[in-house]
Amino acid sequence: MRICLLGAGNVAVHLGKHLQAAGYTLVQVYSRTESSARSLAQALGCAYTNDLLSLSVADYYLCALKDEALPRVLKQIPSFPGLWLHTSGSLGLEVFEPYTRRCGVLYPLQTFSKQRELNLKEVPFFIESFSPELLCDIRSMAEKLSEKVYELDSGKRRYLHLAAVFACNFSNHLYALAAEILQEQGLSFDLLLPLIDETAGKVHEKTPKEAQTGPALRMDRNIIDKHLAILQSEPKRAELYSLLSESIFEHNKKV
Amino acid sequence: MRICLLGAGNVAVHLGKHLQAAGYTLVQVYSRTESSARSLAQALGCAYTNDLLSLSVADYYLCALKDEALPRVLKQIPSFPGLWLHTSGSLGLEVFEPYTRRCGVLYPLQTFSKQRELNLKEVPFFIESFSPELLCDIRSMAEKLSEKVYELDSGKRRYLHLAAVFACNFSNHLYALAAEILQEQGLSFDLLLPLIDETAGKVHEKTPKEAQTGPALRMDRNIIDKHLAILQSEPKRAELYSLLSESIFEHNKKV
Repeated sequence: MRICLLGAGNVAVHLGKHLQAAGYTLVQVYSRTESSARSLAQALGCAYTNDLLSLSVADYYLCALKDEALPRVLKQIPSFPGLWLHTSGSLGLEVFEPYTRRCGVLYPLQTFSKQRELNLKEVPFFIESFSPELLCDIRSMAEKLSEKVYELDSGKRRYLHLAAVFACNFSNHLYALAAEILQEQGLSFDLLLPLIDETAGKVHEKTPKEAQTGPALRMDRNIIDKHLAILQSEPKRAELYSLLSESIFEHNKKV
Repeated sequence: MRICLLGAGNVAVHLGKHLQAAGYTLVQVYSRTESSARSLAQALGCAYTNDLLSLSVADYYLCALKDEALPRVLKQIPSFPGLWLHTSGSLGLEVFEPYTRRCGVLYPLQTFSKQRELNLKEVPFFIESFSPELLCDIRSMAEKLSEKVYELDSGKRRYLHLAAVFACNFSNHLYALAAEILQEQGLSFDLLLPLIDETAGKVHEKTPKEAQTGPALRMDRNIIDKHLAILQSEPKRAELYSLLSESIFEHNKKV
């Protein structure tokens, strides 16, 4: 089965390599940025283009593009052979509808960075299509990549993506703020790694609510006021600290 | 060496068990709540009391109390034999000063929950004392518990604790908000576990800033506005979403 890959970002890089390893033939990489297209195409040993009028004929067109880019890209494509897929958490299936109903979604719930190997087998994939037959094809592709494949509609997928932003993107940003605080004191971020690992590990056994610890849980003003005092030169951090502390306190009052 | 343990919360439970396993003799547990004192004392096979006038004679008095409780407790103690230690990130060493200078700090940088086993060997311990001799004794105790023991003064320890609140308590709360969003859609929190693990795992290899992904990184309004729209019935979550997204965007503009 021949795949044309649209996009050359983190998701495209990981899915391209894993699909190739799973036996699919990557025929072409498209990216608006020629150097990105070339770089991924070289890694996959396939053709590349930055011209949407030169897309190769393929069985699958896998769009791993930014959400804002996909509608713009689709508008410029002259014809829609094959099965069209996107990998977005927040875009609905209906983004393809003006062009083709041979379409679907293949959404991997993971944070992808270049130069970081990932075991996709453990990554949950969420699939969707208008047709049960096409859904079978998409499932077959997803199951070559992962052991965890679920059907999910666009409405619920959007909430899943939102939850992922909280659990991943926002958590990582809190690591970044912690790293800054330590750096300013000449302390190494690595000191926090056992704590970060345990925080992630605990929610395998307990609900996050059960796992919650720290001064905000019982609104320990003694500690909170000290922390706010040392944050006063950084009003943005202080605002986040207050809002998150209040949210923890309110959340844990709920039954 | 005989230890009297003041406190029966999560930190006291873990340190008590590990100190006992390391060869120390736990002679008594004090807690204001008699049932908590009894329960931990039974697990350790030692005496207990809820009366500060009945503390046993010991070599070490290890105070694993809430920050607000420690000064109140110290005020009620008639005499200060032995070496007095606390385990707090935010309380200074000077909390002991009106009573004794044979004192120190033994701060484990970790999130402790009951009913969750921990490998303390990997947990960084931060120690402090007024005297080099006592610091030796404290180091010796810490090194029986962990392979990672560092000397750190109260000023820097406070920043370390603040960073830990961001990286652990606040991150865990974001997991809790994600869990709520999923629960409202009938989706299982377990779907997020590979993502949470990878988010924690990535910062072993990359800085959190390098590891950052998601719509806020380039202020993708397309996704952010959709997320804010589905958060509109939960203004607190929406406020956190906006503030964290802005913070990510601003942070990643910095060189």
